[in-house]
Amino acid sequence: MVRTAIKVDLSKKPQEMPGHNFHNRFHPDIPATVEVKQDEVFKIECYDWSGGQCKNDDCIDDIYEWDLSIGHVLSGPIAVEGAEPGDILEVELLDIQPHPDMLWGFTGILPENRGGGGFLGDLFKKPAKAIWDFEGIYARSRHIPRVKFVGVIHPGIVATAPSRELLDEWNRRESELVNSAPDGKGSSMACLPLPHLAILGHADKDPAKAEKMAKEAARTIPPRENGGNADIKNLSRGSKIWLPVYVKGANLSLGDIHFCEGDGEIALCGAIETAGIITVKTKVLKNGMNLYGLKRAPMFFPGPVEPNYSRYLTFEGICVDDNGKQHFVDTTLAFRQAVLSAIEYLTKYGYTREQAYLFLSACPVESHIASIVDIPNSCVTLGIPIDVFDFNILPNGDGPKVMVKGSHPPSVPK
Amino acid sequence: MVRTAIKVDLSKKPQEMPGHNFHNRFHPDIPATVEVKQDEVFKIECYDWSGGQCKNDDCIDDIYEWDLSIGHVLSGPIAVEGAEPGDILEVELLDIQPHPDMLWGFTGILPENRGGGGFLGDLFKKPAKAIWDFEGIYARSRHIPRVKFVGVIHPGIVATAPSRELLDEWNRRESELVNSAPDGKGSSMACLPLPHLAILGHADKDPAKAEKMAKEAARTIPPRENGGNADIKNLSRGSKIWLPVYVKGANLSLGDIHFCEGDGEIALCGAIETAGIITVKTKVLKNGMNLYGLKRAPMFFPGPVEPNYSRYLTFEGICVDDNGKQHFVDTTLAFRQAVLSAIEYLTKYGYTREQAYLFLSACPVESHIASIVDIPNSCVTLGIPIDVFDFNILPNGDGPKVMVKGSHPPSVPK
Amino acid sequence: MVRTAIKVDLSKKPQEMPGHNFHNRFHPDIPATVEVKQDEVFKIECYDWSGGQCKNDDCIDDIYEWDLSIGHVLSGPIAVEGAEPGDILEVELLDIQPHPDMLWGFTGILPENRGGGGFLGDLFKKPAKAIWDFEGIYARSRHIPRVKFVGVIHPGIVATAPSRELLDEWNRRESELVNSAPDGKGSSMACLPLPHLAILGHADKDPAKAEKMAKEAARTIPPRENGGNADIKNLSRGSKIWLPVYVKGANLSLGDIHFCEGDGEIALCGAIETAGIITVKTKVLKNGMNLYGLKRAPMFFPGPVEPNYSRYLTFEGICVDDNGKQHFVDTTLAFRQAVLSAIEYLTKYGYTREQAYLFLSACPVESHIASIVDIPNSCVTLGIPIDVFDFNILPNGDGPKVMVKGSHPPSVPK
Amino acid sequence: MVRTAIKVDLSKKPQEMPGHNFHNRFHPDIPATVEVKQDEVFKIECYDWSGGQCKNDDCIDDIYEWDLSIGHVLSGPIAVEGAEPGDILEVELLDIQPHPDMLWGFTGILPENRGGGGFLGDLFKKPAKAIWDFEGIYARSRHIPRVKFVGVIHPGIVATAPSRELLDEWNRRESELVNSAPDGKGSSMACLPLPHLAILGHADKDPAKAEKMAKEAARTIPPRENGGNADIKNLSRGSKIWLPVYVKGANLSLGDIHFCEGDGEIALCGAIETAGIITVKTKVLKNGMNLYGLKRAPMFFPGPVEPNYSRYLTFEGICVDDNGKQHFVDTTLAFRQAVLSAIEYLTKYGYTREQAYLFLSACPVESHIASIVDIPNSCVTLGIPIDVFDFNILPNGDGPKVMVKGSHPPSVPK
Repeated sequence: MVRTAIKVDLSKKPQEMPGHNFHNRFHPDIPATVEVKQDEVFKIECYDWSGGQCKNDDCIDDIYEWDLSIGHVLSGPIAVEGAEPGDILEVELLDIQPHPDMLWGFTGILPENRGGGGFLGDLFKKPAKAIWDFEGIYARSRHIPRVKFVGVIHPGIVATAPSRELLDEWNRRESELVNSAPDGKGSSMACLPLPHLAILGHADKDPAKAEKMAKEAARTIPPRENGGNADIKNLSRGSKIWLPVYVKGANLSLGDIHFCEGDGEIALCGAIETAGIITVKTKVLKNGMNLYGLKRAPMFFPGPVEPNYSRYLTFEGICVDDNGKQHFVDTTLAFRQAVLSAIEYLTKYGYTREQAYLFLSACPVESHIASIVDIPNSCVTLGIPIDVFDFNILPNGDGPKVMVKGSHPPSVPK
Repeated sequence: MVRTAIKVDLSKKPQEMPGHNFHNRFHPDIPATVEVKQDEVFKIECYDWSGGQCKNDDCIDDIYEWDLSIGHVLSGPIAVEGAEPGDILEVELLDIQPHPDMLWGFTGILPENRGGGGFLGDLFKKPAKAIWDFEGIYARSRHIPRVKFVGVIHPGIVATAPSRELLDEWNRRESELVNSAPDGKGSSMACLPLPHLAILGHADKDPAKAEKMAKEAARTIPPRENGGNADIKNLSRGSKIWLPVYVKGANLSLGDIHFCEGDGEIALCGAIETAGIITVKTKVLKNGMNLYGLKRAPMFFPGPVEPNYSRYLTFEGICVDDNGKQHFVDTTLAFRQAVLSAIEYLTKYGYTREQAYLFLSACPVESHIASIVDIPNSCVTLGIPIDVFDFNILPNGDGPKVMVKGSHPPSVPK
Repeated sequence: MVRTAIKVDLSKKPQEMPGHNFHNRFHPDIPATVEVKQDEVFKIECYDWSGGQCKNDDCIDDIYEWDLSIGHVLSGPIAVEGAEPGDILEVELLDIQPHPDMLWGFTGILPENRGGGGFLGDLFKKPAKAIWDFEGIYARSRHIPRVKFVGVIHPGIVATAPSRELLDEWNRRESELVNSAPDGKGSSMACLPLPHLAILGHADKDPAKAEKMAKEAARTIPPRENGGNADIKNLSRGSKIWLPVYVKGANLSLGDIHFCEGDGEIALCGAIETAGIITVKTKVLKNGMNLYGLKRAPMFFPGPVEPNYSRYLTFEGICVDDNGKQHFVDTTLAFRQAVLSAIEYLTKYGYTREQAYLFLSACPVESHIASIVDIPNSCVTLGIPIDVFDFNILPNGDGPKVMVKGSHPPSVPK
Repeated sequence: MVRTAIKVDLSKKPQEMPGHNFHNRFHPDIPATVEVKQDEVFKIECYDWSGGQCKNDDCIDDIYEWDLSIGHVLSGPIAVEGAEPGDILEVELLDIQPHPDMLWGFTGILPENRGGGGFLGDLFKKPAKAIWDFEGIYARSRHIPRVKFVGVIHPGIVATAPSRELLDEWNRRESELVNSAPDGKGSSMACLPLPHLAILGHADKDPAKAEKMAKEAARTIPPRENGGNADIKNLSRGSKIWLPVYVKGANLSLGDIHFCEGDGEIALCGAIETAGIITVKTKVLKNGMNLYGLKRAPMFFPGPVEPNYSRYLTFEGICVDDNGKQHFVDTTLAFRQAVLSAIEYLTKYGYTREQAYLFLSACPVESHIASIVDIPNSCVTLGIPIDVFDFNILPNGDGPKVMVKGSHPPSVPK
C-alpha cells in the first residue's frame, strides 16, 4: 500500500484539522509535520486553494463573500531525508487525481473588493462563476455549454520552504514595489505579509510565535525562486520538477489543485479549482544548485499523458493597445490582445463575454511567445483546441452561426 | 504542374530581378505583379530575409558588413481575385521547402552598430554566427556540436498590404513611440520609414514616385494588424492563416523563410535564416473581418506535421531581474529570466554562452506564458526538446558532464 | 457524487459477494443486477480477471495452482434504459483507475497444464511471473529491471450480452472448430462451455437453472461480435466504444482490467493484470446496427490521454518461419517473427528470454500490419518505445552492452 | 550542394536511361553503379514502381494494359564504402519528396489477369483507379471526394542485395510454396523469377549473362530478410532503418515511392504510387548482424514528422468469416473482417465500395494487432483518422447522412 502522508477532510476547515498539516504562508520556521525517505512513494491530499469557500450551485453569493487572504491552503511541509541547503529536490508527481469527495471545480471572476477579475479585471467587473463537473477525465460546465475537454490536472503550487535570507529578500523587493506605487495602488501591485487568516501549520500551536511569524511570512500568490504558485498546467500527471533546497529537509509543500487551466490562467480564480490527491516520489541531487546553476526558478519535465489535442484555432496578439497606442516589446500586453481577440471571436458563436473569459481561463489553451525581437512589437499566440467544441468553430465562407443561447454563468446574488 | 508564380535567382540581388516581384516595405501603392485565382495552387520562391548577405563560411566578416535596412526581402504582392477590403484572406501554406540552391542557413548575433544581439543584446555584444547545414528535414551546425533537430520550417512573414489609413496609423503610433523615447534612444524603439535601400517592387519603375513612397512606406520589422513579421514557428507546413484584407486583391506578400526557430526567436537574426519555396492556396471569406471580428491581428491553424518531440527540459522564469528588483507582471522580463537560466544550464555541458544563445534561438524550443495573474509575477516557461542532443541533458545525481569542447561559433573577423 | 453501481471487495471471492454482480460466462439469461439511465455517469468496480489468484510475491506457487476456468470475472450485467435489440450502445469509458487496494499487477507465463505460455507457448514452457508496482501512472517491476513505463490502462473486456440465437451460433461454430481438430487437440483450439467454476451472477440463485445455463454459456476467452475479450489497449481512459445490442437493456459487462498491455498481449496472462474502477456513461443509438452496418464487431474511438511516446525501435516480421519454410500471407506468423526478433534483441542487453517475453507483453508496444498484398509475405511491425529504458537501447557502432544482470522473474516454485 | 547520385527522367523508360542505374530484380551480381561514403548526404531519384504505366486521366485503359512483371523499378544498387557481409547498414532517410515532374499519384484495383484487386481481390473484380493530386503535403482525389489528408511519404522498398546463398534460399522456399499449391494456383501464391521485362542494371550490358541472371533473380514483390517491399508507411521522412549486409558494399536499392498508404496497403496497387526523391545518409555498424542478432528482417526507427492525427474511428475484426466459419487465430482474416466493416461503414455515407476500398488503401489508416492469445480469435483493429473528412463521420443518434454523390473512380475503359 502507498502511504497517505497528509489527509484532508473536506467537511472540515483546514485550520481545524489535527496534525497541523496545512499552511498558507511561506516561512522557514513552519515545521515539517511529515518526513519521507528518498524514493518513497507517498500520497498527499490537498484542499482546494480557498479551503472550501465555493459552493456547487448556480448563484454567486459565495463569490461575494470570498476571502482571498486564506489562499492558498497548502499541504505540508514535508521533510525529505537527506536534503540540505544547496541541494536540488527532484519531485516526481507520479499521479494527480481529483478528490473523490469533490468531483467538481469552479472558475470565477471575483468582485473588485474581493480580488477582482484577474488579467482582464478592468473589463470584467461583473462577478461570475462557472461550476465544472468532472466526468472521469473530462470537464463540462452547465454554465458554459457545448464544450467538453480533458483536464490537464496539476497542482498550481509545488514549493520548498525559503531560508530566512530568502524570505527577507522577498519582503524587501516586494515592499519596494508596493512602496513605489502611486498612492493607494500598492495593494494591487503585490500582496505583502498579512496576519489575517494566516495558517502556519504546526507553528500555530505557539500563538505568540505564530503571531510574529504571520507578520513576515510570505503570501503564496506569486511564484518565486522556490517554485510556488507558478500555475503551470504542464506540471501534470507524471511530470518531474527540480526545486532548490533552502532549508534542511527541503520542506516541500503542495496544493492549489487545478483540474485544468489554460496557459496564463487569466481569471484570478481562473483554473478549475478543486481538491485532489497527489502521488509523489522525491530524490535529492546533492549540491545540485551549484552543479546545475539553479537559482532563478525551478526546472521541470512535463508529464507524458497530456491530452493529444492537435487542432488549434490560434489568435495572434501584438503590443498595440485598443486605444491605438504602440507599446515597446510588452509581452503582457501582446498576450492581452490575443485574449481579447479570442473572446470577441467566441461571442460570435453566442457565448457571453464572461463565458468566453472563464472558458479561456479553464480550458487547456496554449499560449506561446512567438517573437520578442521584432521591435517595437512582441507577438504572442493563444491557441484554442477546437475539438473541445461539439460544433465546428473554424472560420469559413458562411460566417459564424450562433450555437449557444440562453445559458450563462451565474452572475448575480440570490 | 503547379505554377511557380514568383521565382528567385540566388546569384542575383532581388532588386535586380526583372519582374519586380520583390519589395521590402509595406505600402498600399506597391502594385501586385502576380494575380491568382481562389483555390489555385501555386508556388512562391523567396530570398532569405537579408537578400543574400550571409556567407556559408567560418568567419564573421559578413556580419560586420550587415545592412539591416534591406530586410526583409519579400515576394509579392500577389493579388487574389475577388478579395476586397473587409474580407478575410485565407492563406493555406500547403508546403514550405528550403530552396535547393541554399541547403543551409544562418543564425547570428549582429554587431551593435548593425542591429545588435537581439533580446539579450545587452549581454551579447560580441558578434557571432552559426551556419546550419540541412540534412533533409534535419539541421546540424558545425558551430554548435552534438545537436541535430527537425526544422519547423516557416515564413517569418505572411502579410497583406495595408490601406492608406492603416499605413498612416502605423506611422503615427510608431513615431509617437520613437518621439517619446529619451534623447537618442528612439531608433532602438522602432524602425520608422527609411528610404535607404527601400525596394518597392513594380513601383520602383517610377523613381520619383518611389522616392516619395519610400519616405512613408512601413518597415517590415514588427508584426502588425496585417500579419507581417510575426515569426511564428507554427505557421509551418500545412498551416492555414486568416488575414484581414485592406486593399483590393489583398496584395499578399511572403518571405523571411526560417528553416527553424525557437519560440521568441531571441537573437535578432535569430532563426535559421534561409531561402525557400512556398506552395500556397488562397480563399476569400467575404466580409469576414466583420463576421468574425478580425481586427487586431490574424488567426491561424498550425500545421499537422510538426516534429513529435515529447520530452522537454523546461525552465521557469519570473519577473524579478538579476539585480533582485521586483517588476510588476512583466512577461517580457519573465521570459528573459527563463532564457538566462537555460543558457546558464547549457554552459554546464561545455557550450559557450554564444552557442547556447544561438541554439535557443534556432532550435524549436517551446515557450509558454504559464501564469499572468499571480501578482506581481508572471511566469513564463521555456522548454528544450532533450532528444535533439546526442547525450542525456537531464539533471541527475552525478552532475553535468562537459560534453562539448573546442568548437565554437566564429566570432572574430578574418 | 458519482454512484458506484458495482463494488468489489478484494478480500472476498467474487462468487461470494452479495448482490450477484459478477459473472464469468456470456448467456442471455444472466439477469442485469444494475440499471442505469442514458447519460448517467456511474462507476463500476472490477476484480482482476482471475478473481484474485495471483500473489504479490517472488515465487510462482500461485502460477502452478492457476485455474483458468474461473476467468474472466466480469462486473455486470448492467441494463441500460431504453436499449433494445438492433440498437447500438455507446459506452464512454470516462476514466479507468487501478483499484486502491491493489496498486500492483502481474504478468505470467502459465504452466502448460494451466493454459500455457500464450502466443509463444511452444518456446516458453517454463512458468514465470513478473509483479509490477504502480507508481502513479507508471509501472515498474522488480523482476524486469531498468524499465518504467506509463500504463495504458483499459478493460480487456467490454461486452453486451448475446441473444439466444447468437449464443447458439457461437457454440455451433466453435464446436465445429474443436471437432475439426486433430485428435486431442480440440481443447487447444477453443474453449467450449465448461460448467466448472461458472459464475452466472443472479442466475446462480437458482442452482438448477444455473447448472443448465453453465453447460451452454459461452466462455469469455475470445472476442466476438459483442465485443468481449478484445484486449485492445487503446480502449483506455476517455475512449468510446459502440457495441451492438442483442437483448433488452443491452446487459453491459466490464472487466479484465489491464494496467497496461503491449499490442497482441502475447503472453497468455499477458497484460499487467489487476483490479480497477471504471467510470462509465452510456447512450443508445436507436436502430444503430442497421443504420451503421454494425455486425461483425464493435467500433471505437481511442482515448485522448495515451502516453506521448514518440521514439520506437521497430522490428519487422515476415511469414517465413525459423525453419526456413515460406508460408502464404500468414499475418499471425509474421507477427511471431517480429516478436522473436525483438526478444532476441533484448537478450543482447542482458535480459533473459522470459523477461523479454513478459516485457513485450506488458509494455505498450505498437504492432502494425504493414503490408498484406505482397505475396507470399505479409509484413508486421513491432515497435518498442525506447524511452521506457533508463539506458540507450538503439543500435550503434559499438554494439550492445549488458545492462541487466542477476535479476529475473521468479520461475520456480518455492 | 547535395549530390544527386541517381537521376530519373520521367519522359524516358527506366531501361533506356544511360548509366544503368535501375533494376527490378534482386541478384548478387547486379553491379553497383554508384558508390557513396559513410555519412555522406546524397539524393536518389526514383521512378514510380511501374516505371510510368499509369496516366493522370479519368479512364482505365492503362489499368487494362498493366504489366506487373516490370515492377518494381528500383534505383541502385549503391555501394557503401566499407560495408561487408555481416555488417549492419544504417540507412537514414533524411527526406523524401515527390518528384517535381509528377505531383500526382495513383491507386488502383487491377484486372484479374493483370494482378487483380489485392487483399480483397475476390470481392473487387471490377478494375478501378483513383488519381490523387498533391497539394503540398496533402493529397486529394477528384475520384474520392470530401477527403484530404497528409501524405506519409515513404519508399515501399529499401533493400540490400542478397548473397548467392540467400538468393538460392529464397528460390528454394518460394518454389516449394508454389509447388505445394493446388494445380494451377501456384502463380497466385508467389512470384517466382520471370525473365520477361527483367531489368538488371549494369548487368544488362552483357545480354548473355543477363539472360542467365534473369532466370534466377528474385522478383521484388515480397519483403524478405534484406528489407525489400515491406511497404511500411512509417519509414517516412527522417526515419532510420538497419539492414543486414550480404555482399561487399551492401548494394543498397530504393524505390516504390508512396505519397501515402494505409497500414496493409490493401489494394494491390494500393498506395498512392508516384515518383520521388530521397535524401539519404548511410553508416556501417561493423559485425552488427551478430552483435544485434539481426537476421529475420530489418529494424527501423520511424520518422519524427508523421501527421499529428489524433482522432480515429476504429473498427475491430476477428477471425470469423462472413460465412460464419470460425478460424483459428488467423490474423490475416481478422484484418480482412475489420476492412470489410470499414468499407461497409463508409458506404453508408455515399461512397461506393470501390471508393472506400481505394481510400482505405491510400489514406494513413492505422492497423494494430490488438490481441493474439484469445483463442480461437485474434483481434485486429483498423483506425481511420476522422479529420481527413470535411464532414463528421462519427456515429451518432441521427444515423449517417449521404454526403457523397455522383462521383466515382473511373472503372470502365474508354
